[in-house]
Amino acid sequence: MSVLIVGSTALDSIKTPVAQGHRLLGGSASHAAIAASFFTRVKLVGVVGDDFPQAYLELFRRRKIDLTGLELRKGKTFFWAGEYEPDMNRRRTIKTVLGVFETFKPQLPEPHRAAKFVLLANIAPTLQLHVLEQMRNPRFVAADTMDLWLNTALSDLLKLLSRVDAFILNDSEARHLTGEINLLRAAIKITKLGPKYVIIKKGEHGAILWDGARPFIAPAYPLANVVDPTGAGDTFAGALVGYLASARTSLPAAIRRGMIYGSVVASFCCEGLGLQRTAKLTRQQIERRLAELKRLCSF
Amino acid sequence: MSVLIVGSTALDSIKTPVAQGHRLLGGSASHAAIAASFFTRVKLVGVVGDDFPQAYLELFRRRKIDLTGLELRKGKTFFWAGEYEPDMNRRRTIKTVLGVFETFKPQLPEPHRAAKFVLLANIAPTLQLHVLEQMRNPRFVAADTMDLWLNTALSDLLKLLSRVDAFILNDSEARHLTGEINLLRAAIKITKLGPKYVIIKKGEHGAILWDGARPFIAPAYPLANVVDPTGAGDTFAGALVGYLASARTSLPAAIRRGMIYGSVVASFCCEGLGLQRTAKLTRQQIERRLAELKRLCSF
Repeated sequence: MSVLIVGSTALDSIKTPVAQGHRLLGGSASHAAIAASFFTRVKLVGVVGDDFPQAYLELFRRRKIDLTGLELRKGKTFFWAGEYEPDMNRRRTIKTVLGVFETFKPQLPEPHRAAKFVLLANIAPTLQLHVLEQMRNPRFVAADTMDLWLNTALSDLLKLLSRVDAFILNDSEARHLTGEINLLRAAIKITKLGPKYVIIKKGEHGAILWDGARPFIAPAYPLANVVDPTGAGDTFAGALVGYLASARTSLPAAIRRGMIYGSVVASFCCEGLGLQRTAKLTRQQIERRLAELKRLCSF
Repeated sequence: MSVLIVGSTALDSIKTPVAQGHRLLGGSASHAAIAASFFTRVKLVGVVGDDFPQAYLELFRRRKIDLTGLELRKGKTFFWAGEYEPDMNRRRTIKTVLGVFETFKPQLPEPHRAAKFVLLANIAPTLQLHVLEQMRNPRFVAADTMDLWLNTALSDLLKLLSRVDAFILNDSEARHLTGEINLLRAAIKITKLGPKYVIIKKGEHGAILWDGARPFIAPAYPLANVVDPTGAGDTFAGALVGYLASARTSLPAAIRRGMIYGSVVASFCCEGLGLQRTAKLTRQQIERRLAELKRLCSF
């Protein structure tokens, strides 16, 4: 089954301790869509300006991503410039130009409204809600977020939480949202706000799931050389939901395996600047690393 | 086979956000010895003063720990008082009284020198070396350490590293020792200083092993209620080496499984003040939680 992915499509200028690049393909939906495309057909919903490179559109098309929901508007594409600190766990924003993204209000083409799997990648919760309201009868909706919305749009975010099946956020966001330091307690608390599945991303330490009954621990694939972590979280979410849309097992089992696919594709993401490594992946490379990760955890 | 464990034996006064206790049984060797005792016979080497409660000696005896190497001296037992911050990842020392520990120089009883498995739990590297020099022909020596020795006894620590099979340290210590932020790179770098096996403890995130060829990722058992993390690292090391001494599989496989036992027993340790929870454990409870941990990781 195909997956609908809505979020930001951006141009990123990134500097990490080991690499830098300008006007790279970025944004939550771009990362998530490319990641999901290794598992299923993807419908991308977003907006770009008239400065958006053709090469990036071609990359999406090569990955067989349906672009009928990608608005092309007069003006500048959302631009973000950031620089990572030496430990690559923290970064600072140097410049943000919202451009056409400032007035973005996703309108789904008619066929998109019937999608069964939906990933509301990181954008303002009010836009995520706006997309949900256009959906006819989705089977599984996952939403990702970022710290910004906890501070500026908490009531929208809480409304969103009551309407999604899975909520994906990182460790510091989970602590911030719940006031709980312990991540398992934080995850349990978030399920009480609505989502049946809560997935907390812990970066290099992997991710944990609380499914209402028990936790699941997904390891991260250990990398000795991280080039750029930008988009790793979006990639994780994209691969997870892309896998779910393709899986034939029951949801609780598929989510576990989907998180492992998420970890694996996110590890590739970190090995290149922006989407450079992810874009060149093959499903075979993903499967090989998944098998290796399984070996690295088995006892 | 039995395991020789040398380290500190102490009285701890601990305050965490959820519990507190005074003059609890503590010290690296106490935690490690109790943890190891669920897997094999333990010979404990340490020193206590004449204020050391009989009840604690009885606890060691109940766990069938050989105390012929535990010196009983006139004076005060090593005392530590500490208080944890709300996140329990940091703590501050309120008081330390070295007492009889100040002049401790471990002298091994003759039968102890033939031990095949040795855990040099956290004490000054010069004392760890002094113990090693008395050993006849150990098959496997593991050493644990703490940040203090990286700052005050680095050259002794480096000498020690060249003489042990396995070195166990936590994430911040590994970064401090190597200057590497990436833990896999840090582990690889430490193997170049001598030890074939380097195990980096990451607290709630589990532990990783580098064995010269590939990493192994050991998860932590997810706990919603941490009472007191004191001694969890010592417990991890004790259970690991205790299991190794009892294992019949090849060393690389046994170390992986031993780390899982380490994680499991350390998780129990965190559920009680000091050694209160660990001391009451049964092997059956350990096996049950290990099976559960396996389920929580399987995909």
